[in-house]
Amino acid sequence: MEPAPRRGRPRSEDADARIIEAALESLLDRGYDRFSVDEVAVAAGVAKTTLYRRWPTKDHLIVAVVARLQEQVPVGYSGDVRADLTQYLGAIVDGLDRMRRAGRPATSGDASAGLVAEVAAAAARHADVGAAVQEMFARRNSLALALLEQAREQGELRATADPEVIFDQLAGALYYRLLVTGQPIDAAYVARLVAGVLDGSSG
Amino acid sequence: MEPAPRRGRPRSEDADARIIEAALESLLDRGYDRFSVDEVAVAAGVAKTTLYRRWPTKDHLIVAVVARLQEQVPVGYSGDVRADLTQYLGAIVDGLDRMRRAGRPATSGDASAGLVAEVAAAAARHADVGAAVQEMFARRNSLALALLEQAREQGELRATADPEVIFDQLAGALYYRLLVTGQPIDAAYVARLVAGVLDGSSG
Repeated sequence: MEPAPRRGRPRSEDADARIIEAALESLLDRGYDRFSVDEVAVAAGVAKTTLYRRWPTKDHLIVAVVARLQEQVPVGYSGDVRADLTQYLGAIVDGLDRMRRAGRPATSGDASAGLVAEVAAAAARHADVGAAVQEMFARRNSLALALLEQAREQGELRATADPEVIFDQLAGALYYRLLVTGQPIDAAYVARLVAGVLDGSSG
Repeated sequence: MEPAPRRGRPRSEDADARIIEAALESLLDRGYDRFSVDEVAVAAGVAKTTLYRRWPTKDHLIVAVVARLQEQVPVGYSGDVRADLTQYLGAIVDGLDRMRRAGRPATSGDASAGLVAEVAAAAARHADVGAAVQEMFARRNSLALALLEQAREQGELRATADPEVIFDQLAGALYYRLLVTGQPIDAAYVARLVAGVLDGSSG
């Protein structure tokens, strides 16, 4: 959402922007456990009541922050779907890695999903947070789905290819490794994944 | 860890089994939020100290319960990999559905990941819970990987097929829908997913 033009006094979206900025900084610095909504209000220079009216719980505020982080993943069709998907998944992996490390020291061997798991749990606990998370991913993923549709129109994907399923296979494998099995996600894995999805496995 | 041999009085694994049983019942009935470790100790007829020595937090105990639920998913190669994978994923979907509904009323339109998300968050919070969850999935998933290996040996999958990646695409898509996008997972979706993974999408 673009803010409307300014009219004299600070408007609520100015406060929103300051809050999100302060929350992002605090979250990256301190992590989910030690993240304090009250401290964010102080850092953003807004009344606690203002903050709580807009985001009633820590979970609500954190999802708003993650939504901002997520908007930074670029995606577009260049005519080479294999390269585009590889680049796109690489950007997702980088974003997930920033989120999972938020507020935690970079310990070798630490594979915790960190904030990524907390967001999934927050979405599961509060119906309104769940709806916000789903909306955020629907908006973000629509760009990747459009890329897959274009690749199909150009004949890079077969006519029967199923963009929704293709996207779930790709993003799903990454989230599954991060949230469930804890197996590493590196550039070599991304390459294997893109090859597997495009080429299939039938004999 | 294997328990030591029996010597007259009830052994610790008897107590463990009673605790897991009581915890499972309580979890399915009350859900994660209202699940009480103290009440499980009472229901299992063990001292709280016994329970806490074995599972120091609610998160630790819940993962032990989920490990038991997860062991019930059957998988084997029949010579028809498409049918086998469809059946296997159907069983995973049923198990996920039981877990996500644990302790919650069956409200129409409720797509919360429930306990599945709480387990992912517990794994992210405690390194030892994370290790236990990863071990549980490694053990369970090894059966599905063996099925894919057999299908490849039999020529149902091509020689270059990558069982680890295939498995991540399948399981990952299901968990991604449940934990992240909230999109429905039904038999029609499972069929699309298996077809997508086996057939690929290249033009």
